Formats: sequence, C-alpha cells, structure tokens
Amino acid sequence: MSRLALFCLALSMLLAPIARAEIKTESIDYKLGNLTMKGYLAYDDAIKTPRPGVLICPEWWGLNDYPKSRAKQLAALGYVAFAGDPYGDGQTATTMADAQKLSAIKSDRTALRARANAALAVLAARPEVDPKKLAAIGYCFGGTMALELARSGADLAAVVSFHGGLDTPNPADAKNIKAKVLVCTGADDTSIPPTMVNSFIDEMKAAKVDYAVEIYGGAVHAFTNPANDGSLSPNIKYNAKADQRSWAAMTELFGEAFGPTAAPAGAH
Amino acid sequence: MSRLALFCLALSMLLAPIARAEIKTESIDYKLGNLTMKGYLAYDDAIKTPRPGVLICPEWWGLNDYPKSRAKQLAALGYVAFAGDPYGDGQTATTMADAQKLSAIKSDRTALRARANAALAVLAARPEVDPKKLAAIGYCFGGTMALELARSGADLAAVVSFHGGLDTPNPADAKNIKAKVLVCTGADDTSIPPTMVNSFIDEMKAAKVDYAVEIYGGAVHAFTNPANDGSLSPNIKYNAKADQRSWAAMTELFGEAFGPTAAPAGAH
Repeated sequence: MSRLALFCLALSMLLAPIARAEIKTESIDYKLGNLTMKGYLAYDDAIKTPRPGVLICPEWWGLNDYPKSRAKQLAALGYVAFAGDPYGDGQTATTMADAQKLSAIKSDRTALRARANAALAVLAARPEVDPKKLAAIGYCFGGTMALELARSGADLAAVVSFHGGLDTPNPADAKNIKAKVLVCTGADDTSIPPTMVNSFIDEMKAAKVDYAVEIYGGAVHAFTNPANDGSLSPNIKYNAKADQRSWAAMTELFGEAFGPTAAPAGAH
Repeated sequence: MSRLALFCLALSMLLAPIARAEIKTESIDYKLGNLTMKGYLAYDDAIKTPRPGVLICPEWWGLNDYPKSRAKQLAALGYVAFAGDPYGDGQTATTMADAQKLSAIKSDRTALRARANAALAVLAARPEVDPKKLAAIGYCFGGTMALELARSGADLAAVVSFHGGLDTPNPADAKNIKAKVLVCTGADDTSIPPTMVNSFIDEMKAAKVDYAVEIYGGAVHAFTNPANDGSLSPNIKYNAKADQRSWAAMTELFGEAFGPTAAPAGAH
C-alpha cells in the first residue's frame, strides 16, 4: 500500500466518528423577575468534556434566526453557545419601529446588565460548560449588552462586540472588566463614529483593559448579518469581508483566551 | 493495531519528508542607481512550485537580524520572503541618532518608493515566486515604506504596516493602491496618534481602498520587536500580545489574498 493510501485509510478510520457528531440545539426557559426568557443553546454532543461557553447577545431584533445561526457556528467550533433572550417571551421584531421600542431598555444599563447576567448564569450552570471559561459576544444592541456585561464585572475571559454601540454612562466601570475585549466596527458606520471609538479607547486605556479595536474599511452598521441588503437603511448592510475578518479575529481571541481551539466538531 | 496507532504510523510515514525540508536563505545584491543593495531572501526549498512572495521593509535600523528572522518565519509558512535593504551596502544603525540619519530618506517619498520598488522587482523575478502573488509588509519606517510602495501603484495583493507612520504628503495617490491594506498600530504609540490614524482612514475611504486598521490596547511603538525592552525610549517596547495578534491578522489577510496558506514547510 502506498504511504498516501495508508494515510488516507487511517485517517478515514480515525475520523469515522465525525459522522455521528451532531450539533444539538435546545430552547431553554429561564426567569428574570417576572419575565420568562427563552434562550437557545447549541453544542456538539459528541464532545464529552466541559468546554468554554460563549454567550451570544442578539441584535435589537431579538433572538431570531441570526443569533441562532451564530450559536450553531460556535458549537461547530467546539464551544457551548447560548443565545440569550434580551426581551422576554422570545419576543422579536421585524420592523425598525418595533426593534426600537424593544431595545429602549438600552437606556437602562442596570436592567441591560441584569438581562445579560441572567443569560450568562444559565450558560455557566450547564454541565457541558467549564464555568471558568466563559466569553460573551454581541451584535449591534447586543454588542453594547456584552460590553455592559463586562463592565458589570462578570467573570468573562473574552468579550467581542460586533458593530455594537461603544458609549456608556458608566465609563468608570471599565475598571471591573476582567475580559480581553475586542471591538469590531465598520469604518463607515454612521452610528459608531470615530469620536465614539476614540472615547471607548480612552475608557479602556484609563482602566488598563486588555483590548483591541478593529476598524473595517467600507463596512457600515450590522455588517455581519447576511440578511442586511441595505433596503432598511444604507447604514445597515452586510459586508462579507468584514464579516469574515471579524469572525476570524474572534476565533483568534478565543484561542488566546482558552488555548487551542476547543475540540472542533468530530475531533475528539 | 489500534486505530490511533495506525493513524500515527501512517502520519509519521507521510510526514517523513519534513525532516528534509529546509529554509534556505541567501544574500542578494541588487542595484539602484549608484547604490548596491544587499537584500536577504528566505524560502523553503522543498516546495517546488511558484508561490506568493512577501517583501519585508525593515525598521529604521536597516536590514539587521530582526527582518531576517521575520523572513525565515514567512518562509516557514510557505512564502518566499525577501527583506529589502533600505539604505545600500547593507548599512544598519545601532544608535537612534544613526538610525535617524539613515532614515531621513523618509522625507523623499519618491526615493523611498524607488527603493521599495527595486526590492520588489528582485522578489518578483525569483523563479520560486509567482509574480502575480505579491505582498509587502513593513515595520516602523518600513511600514511607511510599504504603504508608499502601495501608493506608487505597485502590483501587490496585500500590504501590512506594523507600527508604521501613516502620514503621506501624497494622500491622493491612495487611488493607485491595488492591495488590501492592513494597518496594525499601538493604541499608546505616541508617534502614531489617533489624529494620524483618523487621517489615514479618511485617505483610504476617499480612495475606496480595501483596508482595515487594528488598534492594540497597551501597545506603544515598535511593539513587534522582542529586542525592544523600553530602554531606548518608553515608546519603543515589545508587546507580546500585540505582536501575536498582528501576526495572526497578517496571516489571515494573506490567506484572504492568496487562498489557503501557501504550503507550510514540509507539507508538499
């Protein structure tokens, strides 16, 4: 048998379990005061050891298909992903007016932090998760939420904001941040102007946070969501390059925070 | 034999040629007017097909051991790397005063571009190189040089500046840029202040360049060079995290520009 043939045979035998590996997803209810939150969990159930958990904070649309797709992507990388329900009862919006109403909670940072912390607690308590290895990511409104979660002092190893608002009424709270922070933002995003980016950098500097900011040329707001074709607003548009670059930067940061990629699906 | 043992045996057989793979380096003289430049080439001679070439523009110290080590690192990734001689006769400086004198050419952007282009031509003509797949990277003074090379209209797929000066007397020349541009800069680098970063972004925007800027918290100038212990200046200091993050961003960009990593050393 040639070397290559032998290798291919051995490889196919070794990798045979991949066919059985499967991303499991489930809806999980949790309580916050009077609210019943409906979160969404995704993980590769072929992995048998506790592994890093990643909280996903959805866009202002709420927990619709987009954060769910990200949860499945993270699960395929070997993480346990949990998309929190930001509004309760799994409410989602499909018009900007409704999204604006739902996301008005953004002005109450105490409430915002409480919602993120409640979701994080669900994730941390999962048996599949190593509760010492937690991260949070967020998109738009959810990026702001993930950053506020970090500012609340949550035990996070990494936080990533994708096109999230960076301003906060509580810049001094940056001193509570334990996580490595990565901000991914579009250079042409009119809702995240350079002044906001610079203020955020000043905030991180003052608190000596371990942070990085990536600015993508040509990208506007909400650049990671393939559904955004620009019809809602010229400032809400998908940008494939910025999407790929920011996702790569996130996985790189997770590698830095958690060590080599948590077992990719099937490689166990 | 267990599956795993068989796999390991087959893998070791397949990878046996790695032991024979070797990074070859050579000094290469080339002419620019009356100057004789002494460049430094590195490649994995076990790779037999033309592959992407990466020009390295050294720091103001000239072509000393640091850019040579980067050339070997790039060669190990499967690229052909060529560190250009910015000053002629392989001149290097060891004091800041001498480095300042040598790098005064920075104020003559026509000459700076000519030096970079001469080095790029050497790289492009190498039989190991696919001349349609070229990139340039540069450190500090060399970052400025690599960006000016791009502004000169050079046929580059990617350009990366590590803690390079971003200002130019010729912002309109950004329209000539063909490369994807990545700028890696320290948030605390007093020689690359936010105003310079913002002007650069404006320049790239106006010319619709495909670019990204990464800003690393806690990093000052010259953050990629492990020799920098802060003794020369508090603004010249190595930062391991920023070094690793910027190198990862570079390899990511090369992957985007050239496709999956050019054959890593031994994997042929």
